[in-house]
Amino acid sequence: MKTLAGVNPLDNLRIVLVNTTHPGNIGAAARAMKNMGLSELYLVAPLKFPADEATWRASNAADVLERAVVVETFDDAIADCGLVIGSSARERTIPWPLLDARRACEQAYREASKQKVALVFGREDRGLTNEELQKCQLHINIPSNAEYSSLNVAMAVQVIAYELRMAHLANDQPIDVMADWDFPFAQADDIERFYTHLEQTLSEMGFLKADAPKQTSARLRRMFQRTRLDAMEINMLRGILSSAQYWVKKARGENS
Amino acid sequence: MKTLAGVNPLDNLRIVLVNTTHPGNIGAAARAMKNMGLSELYLVAPLKFPADEATWRASNAADVLERAVVVETFDDAIADCGLVIGSSARERTIPWPLLDARRACEQAYREASKQKVALVFGREDRGLTNEELQKCQLHINIPSNAEYSSLNVAMAVQVIAYELRMAHLANDQPIDVMADWDFPFAQADDIERFYTHLEQTLSEMGFLKADAPKQTSARLRRMFQRTRLDAMEINMLRGILSSAQYWVKKARGENS
Repeated sequence: MKTLAGVNPLDNLRIVLVNTTHPGNIGAAARAMKNMGLSELYLVAPLKFPADEATWRASNAADVLERAVVVETFDDAIADCGLVIGSSARERTIPWPLLDARRACEQAYREASKQKVALVFGREDRGLTNEELQKCQLHINIPSNAEYSSLNVAMAVQVIAYELRMAHLANDQPIDVMADWDFPFAQADDIERFYTHLEQTLSEMGFLKADAPKQTSARLRRMFQRTRLDAMEINMLRGILSSAQYWVKKARGENS
Repeated sequence: MKTLAGVNPLDNLRIVLVNTTHPGNIGAAARAMKNMGLSELYLVAPLKFPADEATWRASNAADVLERAVVVETFDDAIADCGLVIGSSARERTIPWPLLDARRACEQAYREASKQKVALVFGREDRGLTNEELQKCQLHINIPSNAEYSSLNVAMAVQVIAYELRMAHLANDQPIDVMADWDFPFAQADDIERFYTHLEQTLSEMGFLKADAPKQTSARLRRMFQRTRLDAMEINMLRGILSSAQYWVKKARGENS
């Protein structure tokens, strides 16, 4: 193992598919990988590859397929890796260090800053053999419904690739729910002026009087406060209020 | 909305697929759902369903496909839902409250203990339309590689279903900012009726016409959607609209 300083850990994470039967799953896995920023795919003795079905399902990840390395044996696929993680159904005769997808991917990502890490996925119908699993340091389990726990292999790759990307993003700030908003948020004093305008208009309309004014005002305030009004929305709402005031005045014969 | 005590939140989480073109994706989504313990699938005008390809890809999740509800319109699929979350690429002309998959699923799961929650996925080639996204309260984004960010729709369902299961498995529930609300949240169909009433009233007032109607409608919708209107607020707002309509009519001499 050599230290690979300055390397993007995503480039050190290798997806290994063992004896895949359906080429469509290889293509779908390649797409899932590229969507999440992974690029290194090893195929251990696939039944049929290359194949049109793989290319079609890969969509715009044809480059991942083209660079895929086809090898004859499981050992060939993991030879240069410092950590090998095998996907596993939970029930095994010999217990093994088992992590859920999230924690395994956090560890895989961490270690990928200094070495190659393989994440290995087995056959569609029966996963990895016990012999193969025993060549792994860690087993990974994707939590699933006990009534139907067998994920499609490309789907399993998608979940793992997603968790690797989440680990990659963990140092960044989580997405701010209202980041990059198009208008500045309204200032408190502008918002207060809006409430004054709102209450005045509703009074003129006879709405507030009729309907328990304090309660209604409080509810309107709660509703608008929690929405975080922006400056443009304040203008729009005040435009609507002015229009309503115009009609009330006109109806009362108070317009010029 | 009635309180659904003792309900498994996973049973209140609905996956909605809009105008899916490839039946294989419907089948793959059904399998992903069942693997993660979800069962409620709505299909809005799928191109081809039922279909052999869907059944084949569903594997042992044929029961999810058999119980899938096919509807004609987006509105039909979300009508009885108290929270509607739309999957979105990040760049939109009007920014909208956006959460990453993990946080959105935590919120969806929490709220599914008391009401139906829809998670909506768009077309293979272009996702959800702006109009559809504007009927959602929240947008969800699966973090992905900027160079190739478009996930296959069934893969996106898999990631979201996985995160919902992880939320299901989490012992410590984070604090719900709107837990124990005093009124039930408004259902999607009531909210749509409010928008119809709002637009009609603003038209009668001459406000919408004057001020670029589509843009204004979209902005009003964004403002109200992100506030999560409750049933009492809807009544109050509609009362205000009716009052405004009364004054416009009166001003025009149309009242009796």
